[in-house]
Amino acid sequence: MLATASTTAKDAALAAAADLLVQHTPAILEANATDVDRAEASGTAATVVDRLRLTAARVEAMADGLRQVAALPDPVGEVVGGWTRPNGLLIEKVRVPLGVVAIIYENRPNVTSDAFGLCLKSGNAAFLRGSGAALASNLAVAAALREGLEKAGLPADALVLVDDVRHQAAVEFMRLREYIDCLIPRGGPSLIKAILENATVPYVIDGDGNCHVYVDESADLDQALDILVNAKTQRPSVCNAAESLVVHSSVAAQFLPRAAAALSGVDLVGDERSQQVVPSIAAATDDDYGKEFLDLRMSVAVVDSLDQAIAHVNRYGTGHTEAICTTDLAAAGRFTREVDAAAVVVNASTRFTDGEQFGFGAEIGISTQKLHARGPMGLRELTTVKYVIHGDGQVRA
Amino acid sequence: MLATASTTAKDAALAAAADLLVQHTPAILEANATDVDRAEASGTAATVVDRLRLTAARVEAMADGLRQVAALPDPVGEVVGGWTRPNGLLIEKVRVPLGVVAIIYENRPNVTSDAFGLCLKSGNAAFLRGSGAALASNLAVAAALREGLEKAGLPADALVLVDDVRHQAAVEFMRLREYIDCLIPRGGPSLIKAILENATVPYVIDGDGNCHVYVDESADLDQALDILVNAKTQRPSVCNAAESLVVHSSVAAQFLPRAAAALSGVDLVGDERSQQVVPSIAAATDDDYGKEFLDLRMSVAVVDSLDQAIAHVNRYGTGHTEAICTTDLAAAGRFTREVDAAAVVVNASTRFTDGEQFGFGAEIGISTQKLHARGPMGLRELTTVKYVIHGDGQVRA
Repeated sequence: MLATASTTAKDAALAAAADLLVQHTPAILEANATDVDRAEASGTAATVVDRLRLTAARVEAMADGLRQVAALPDPVGEVVGGWTRPNGLLIEKVRVPLGVVAIIYENRPNVTSDAFGLCLKSGNAAFLRGSGAALASNLAVAAALREGLEKAGLPADALVLVDDVRHQAAVEFMRLREYIDCLIPRGGPSLIKAILENATVPYVIDGDGNCHVYVDESADLDQALDILVNAKTQRPSVCNAAESLVVHSSVAAQFLPRAAAALSGVDLVGDERSQQVVPSIAAATDDDYGKEFLDLRMSVAVVDSLDQAIAHVNRYGTGHTEAICTTDLAAAGRFTREVDAAAVVVNASTRFTDGEQFGFGAEIGISTQKLHARGPMGLRELTTVKYVIHGDGQVRA
Repeated sequence: MLATASTTAKDAALAAAADLLVQHTPAILEANATDVDRAEASGTAATVVDRLRLTAARVEAMADGLRQVAALPDPVGEVVGGWTRPNGLLIEKVRVPLGVVAIIYENRPNVTSDAFGLCLKSGNAAFLRGSGAALASNLAVAAALREGLEKAGLPADALVLVDDVRHQAAVEFMRLREYIDCLIPRGGPSLIKAILENATVPYVIDGDGNCHVYVDESADLDQALDILVNAKTQRPSVCNAAESLVVHSSVAAQFLPRAAAALSGVDLVGDERSQQVVPSIAAATDDDYGKEFLDLRMSVAVVDSLDQAIAHVNRYGTGHTEAICTTDLAAAGRFTREVDAAAVVVNASTRFTDGEQFGFGAEIGISTQKLHARGPMGLRELTTVKYVIHGDGQVRA
């Protein structure tokens, strides 16, 4: 029974699976070549083909990922809390696996291995559905992983890869209430939309990040500039990259020209007041403020107060990560209390909202929903709890 | 802003609402009389009319409920954890309100007040939809509660009662993703079914309890008898009452006759082996084992091992509360680890799975789902978390 498998057995399976991935490299690359050839033949965009393509180094990285997960603490069995009631009942709240965790994902075959590792370590069976474009690669990767499970004496079916890749099958997959305890989608807006419309299984959404950097009137402008540039440009394609700059009007004239210069190469779109200071800023539409660009593009807004900044962030944000640059203790306090997001950051880059950066060791995604998990999801977020109650004959009066 | 309202302000509103409920008793009873008269005129069952009926004492009990919630600790602002990363970032995980909590419920007007109290204390706006049969009563109760909010300087709209009680409006209510952060249904199987089929908002299900008492071969049979009788008969109509007795074959001949005698007045339905020991037990169908009777009826099964007992419980249970009576440490350990339920109980009645009995002070329901909350839901389960990150200019390399 996977849920009660020992940490030793799970870690042995992760180590065996890692070794087998490396051993199976030729078969995996051969399978991957058929996926890549088919994708190229059908005119798939080069960036998509790149996500699909495996190399010996990428397979080695997948194996290393499994070894890293093996080295993390096992969340299962953690006693989250406990107390004794006046009648002598001892109530303990213990972390247990969810059961079956389903992941729907797109083209990257490494997700097959990464998701499996996190699910196994947290005692969950992994029920995976990748894209049709990566089916041969995913099957080859899964074969190695399943062999690793068996080698460690665990059931191979702790990993099940769905090989029916029709669109209709994905919809059916989202409705398997009898089999799936939690569904986590790893993909873009169209996948998320399909889940919101069709899923009847419980899910945790890894959602958009329309993240803001607000530069307060009291900000250390040099520091704010570093934070802004890092948040926007260090890796623009990810969900914790900043998409919007909000500046207090009392520092706009000083800060915006420096920001525009430091963000050369980034298309800035802004409101009239930002355009008055920096004429090269194009006019923003309301739509621009609500958009996760995932690109070298950024919206700019000038506000007259902390209240306006908070209102702007709460109106356009997606509840992911919002940062304030300030030296004012009261402003930091109000921003962190009043902005509604998974992470609120004072004087640091938005890019830190990440399982690795939080010290979780690995992550399955970043939740922008409020139920179950919010923010980076590591091994603990792949568990639930159970109350274990010990008595000596207590009955209710 | 309700989410950041002080505990003092929320407690003042609860106290004012309690006083106003009592002051408004004549108006509330008058409104209630119209609901009760209409229900009686349309031939509603007497038990349902009883749930609908208010008295001065019941209104006083609602007011007391609000005062008790005011006396509980405020979950908002609790720092659940915190740590400093090697780069100096301080990461804190802080409890915050969910936002808008929606409750759909049936005939009891006291839910209007109880749900409001728990939502307000946890910083959430309450968006309530009761049944059409109780509309006049609910509106009168809500008027008093909203007056209490205003008296304490909080927005009256922290409580919104939906007055469109058409069936179609309930379905629309379950799909208000833009407005509802969490939906908690308080009602029977048909309401739960409607939620599972129609809801697109996040929800927490307060589900069925097909709870078992397993009497192990090593059980103290006197103690087991007390536990069984309490679990089954102390209040048969509630979800944590036992519905099924599972007995190890080595003690069946000793225990079952005593159980049948002690449970006189309870209809027992069982398998052949239980019938051989106690001929008055009627034959059970598979359906009986899967049923939450909520009545003086109980299924009985004889098993040959702990393994069989665990398999039976996991097959027929609804993940609510499962109890074992045993003196064997290893059996207790295996049962608590291998049975998949919100609460597993060793040597005590199933009736303890309850917010009050757990020491939570009050509960909004008992979750049988695995995401977000499992088991009794108190004030903490009406919150989510936010990561608050403090830096001094950190950027990602």
